[in-house]
Amino acid sequence: MRIIKVKDYDELGKVTTQHLLGQMFKKQGRVNLAITAGKTPLKVYEYLVPEVKEKAYLSHVHYYNFDEIPHKMGNQLGITMSELNELYFEPAEISKDNIHPLNEQNYLEQDERIARNGGLDCILLGIGEDGHYCGNLPNTTNFEDFTSRVDCDEKMKERLSGHFDDPEDIPDYYITMGPRSIMAAEQLVLIADGSRKAKIMKEFLEGKVTSEIPASILKMHPNLTVIMDQEAASLLN
Amino acid sequence: MRIIKVKDYDELGKVTTQHLLGQMFKKQGRVNLAITAGKTPLKVYEYLVPEVKEKAYLSHVHYYNFDEIPHKMGNQLGITMSELNELYFEPAEISKDNIHPLNEQNYLEQDERIARNGGLDCILLGIGEDGHYCGNLPNTTNFEDFTSRVDCDEKMKERLSGHFDDPEDIPDYYITMGPRSIMAAEQLVLIADGSRKAKIMKEFLEGKVTSEIPASILKMHPNLTVIMDQEAASLLN
Amino acid sequence: MRIIKVKDYDELGKVTTQHLLGQMFKKQGRVNLAITAGKTPLKVYEYLVPEVKEKAYLSHVHYYNFDEIPHKMGNQLGITMSELNELYFEPAEISKDNIHPLNEQNYLEQDERIARNGGLDCILLGIGEDGHYCGNLPNTTNFEDFTSRVDCDEKMKERLSGHFDDPEDIPDYYITMGPRSIMAAEQLVLIADGSRKAKIMKEFLEGKVTSEIPASILKMHPNLTVIMDQEAASLLN
Amino acid sequence: MRIIKVKDYDELGKVTTQHLLGQMFKKQGRVNLAITAGKTPLKVYEYLVPEVKEKAYLSHVHYYNFDEIPHKMGNQLGITMSELNELYFEPAEISKDNIHPLNEQNYLEQDERIARNGGLDCILLGIGEDGHYCGNLPNTTNFEDFTSRVDCDEKMKERLSGHFDDPEDIPDYYITMGPRSIMAAEQLVLIADGSRKAKIMKEFLEGKVTSEIPASILKMHPNLTVIMDQEAASLLN
Repeated sequence: MRIIKVKDYDELGKVTTQHLLGQMFKKQGRVNLAITAGKTPLKVYEYLVPEVKEKAYLSHVHYYNFDEIPHKMGNQLGITMSELNELYFEPAEISKDNIHPLNEQNYLEQDERIARNGGLDCILLGIGEDGHYCGNLPNTTNFEDFTSRVDCDEKMKERLSGHFDDPEDIPDYYITMGPRSIMAAEQLVLIADGSRKAKIMKEFLEGKVTSEIPASILKMHPNLTVIMDQEAASLLN
Repeated sequence: MRIIKVKDYDELGKVTTQHLLGQMFKKQGRVNLAITAGKTPLKVYEYLVPEVKEKAYLSHVHYYNFDEIPHKMGNQLGITMSELNELYFEPAEISKDNIHPLNEQNYLEQDERIARNGGLDCILLGIGEDGHYCGNLPNTTNFEDFTSRVDCDEKMKERLSGHFDDPEDIPDYYITMGPRSIMAAEQLVLIADGSRKAKIMKEFLEGKVTSEIPASILKMHPNLTVIMDQEAASLLN
Repeated sequence: MRIIKVKDYDELGKVTTQHLLGQMFKKQGRVNLAITAGKTPLKVYEYLVPEVKEKAYLSHVHYYNFDEIPHKMGNQLGITMSELNELYFEPAEISKDNIHPLNEQNYLEQDERIARNGGLDCILLGIGEDGHYCGNLPNTTNFEDFTSRVDCDEKMKERLSGHFDDPEDIPDYYITMGPRSIMAAEQLVLIADGSRKAKIMKEFLEGKVTSEIPASILKMHPNLTVIMDQEAASLLN
Repeated sequence: MRIIKVKDYDELGKVTTQHLLGQMFKKQGRVNLAITAGKTPLKVYEYLVPEVKEKAYLSHVHYYNFDEIPHKMGNQLGITMSELNELYFEPAEISKDNIHPLNEQNYLEQDERIARNGGLDCILLGIGEDGHYCGNLPNTTNFEDFTSRVDCDEKMKERLSGHFDDPEDIPDYYITMGPRSIMAAEQLVLIADGSRKAKIMKEFLEGKVTSEIPASILKMHPNLTVIMDQEAASLLN
């Protein structure tokens, strides 16, 4: 594990961008990245987009999402892909041919598809205040799981409600790559910023590996890099 | 994870030897292997010794032990290194310069020493009927541990007694690379043979990741190969 | 460069087999090997076939030929693939799905196809007494060439005549992966046995990099292993 | 080979910096880089210095120079290391412990030292208008050479004279890693900018592999990236 403590959120965006670009350039041939939606990576995409947009020499880079929250009504794009489109794929003008959506139709083939495509070179991950990553939440997903469909209980539906205009549209399940799917990648990069992440970063880095803090398993990966700002690191020994 | 089911114990020895030799030849420069003592690898060393003995072209291969049971009295070599000497290092005539013993004196530097030496390319591991590997036993070692000293309770002392002529010589502690030290290697090869391993192999491969079955964490490694004979595989779905 | 001097032709077969099996086991996911026909590898395939035949756990290994001599008349399989079938693919019962023939129809796509499939993990090569490898002969192929069609002059046709029953069947051209295609692989293993190879091994290993000795370029590869018996090594300093 | 055409010299500096940072972050453990002095990388170091200076998380990165021009008189630091100090090591505040100078005293051990340190992960190279790279000049160095001392003829002394205040100080020889030392690295990054490099870039990329254009051998490396601006690329087909 490599721990990178940066000054602030801006530097987090910069250094994470350096990691992602580094993966794109490290070898000849196809590179496969899985990237995260959410708030933490906003600054990353702000830095990354201009480095990637209209760069013909990056056409070997392919993208995957690692979770998806579908709409219950209609055939709209799920929440994760909608966010990734807005944050990165559209502003960076990534070709549709290089984007490989995971969704409720194809999730059973996700692990096999990624293996067939040569495996993931890097996954960019965030961490929740409750220790979740991707759709792996305390008490829902087990370390031994691969990509799967996870049923939403009422608590989960409430949690998801902010993503939906119409409560009728909140789905009964969501999709996520499981701990084993994530651990199969060559490199993991986990990012965290802000004081509200300080407590979980301490538990994640200094505490036990336990399914109550799903991200705790990521410490066991042979090539994990954690990038966090001073606030997120403020409680560490 | 790659699962290799072989016909019998003899084929297990052969195919495991192919894995170890393969690691020795895969790249230019130094190769670091950690290998296991115990009964399971007897056939491996039977096949491996003649392929390694007096081969000048294998002088780039370095060896590590991943656990050690010291003698309480005197300064004798520990149980693990004694066994490895007898099973492999002496018959294969491995140079002392290429053997890097882990023991009660240097265990605190083991992880850092291995990292400085370029990391382990491969670890050859067995699995106990209780799911232990190296000195990581149910209810003694935690997934988040690095190399450490583990105190022996009375039960453990009883368990170790078979290794010692004099009960006074049974130590109060032993040394082991912890789960995180093991997971840091580039490749893990776990071997199991015989019907008495069938139950634990089913639990290991099909069950949950839990510290009650220490080896269960190894499923999370991005490059784990399991080699087992038909008997050990007999209860798998 | 790693130079492995073995006792005799038998040990050459054994150690080369260890290299090929090692490549098959070194990582998770698909492994791509290009292998050689001709006389030098006879002993390799003798050792390799029983280790590969009926082994379900090797279904991730894919095979490529690196040159082909087509028949002028009819649609028969070329000389190289015919030999590889007889020496290895048929006795080892390799699935057709795992064999990717290079021939006069598809040679223009060979380099791109290999790149798309993830690149070659290893190429097993022989060397001719004139320093040729694959179809890269003194004064025909240039170091900067990729896979190409090479026209046969009268001298070349005479050289090829031993492969053909009917002189009318000798082709006007043959196909070969070029030096750059070969150098793109992750590992190269070059084998040589017998006193008749002693002179060229000396020139290859101790002489200049020159297109008059096509194999001399292979010394520049970051991961080349040369395996030769005592006779082939007899003139080395 | 990956060819990256950038807009201008500024973008060349930026994208090359992304490559170097990417190498620093791609794996756990020590990273070894060899970097170039001269004019071409000025913009690279301008971008790189602030990303590296005072970053405790980059203490695993080690640096090598690949050539050196010693002073004939006195014991001053050679021309290359003086330049690298000024351009990069001093402004970036790289620790002396992480800088591994090549000079006239230790050049015979350079290749072995680098191998013992784990090999070079990446070499950043420029190219001369005459096709030279490092100290490998047309008609001085041969492709098969490792690190060596090269005698200066009168022409070479004249060429070097610009680096010296006192003509008495121009050395009778210089030091350079040879083509084989360079080709042993895991990744090569070659940079070129400006119209005065357009002719050699065409010859380098589209011409033959020949010792008259020393850099032409670099095309044979399995992981070469060429970064050049529009002017340097202006004559390419």
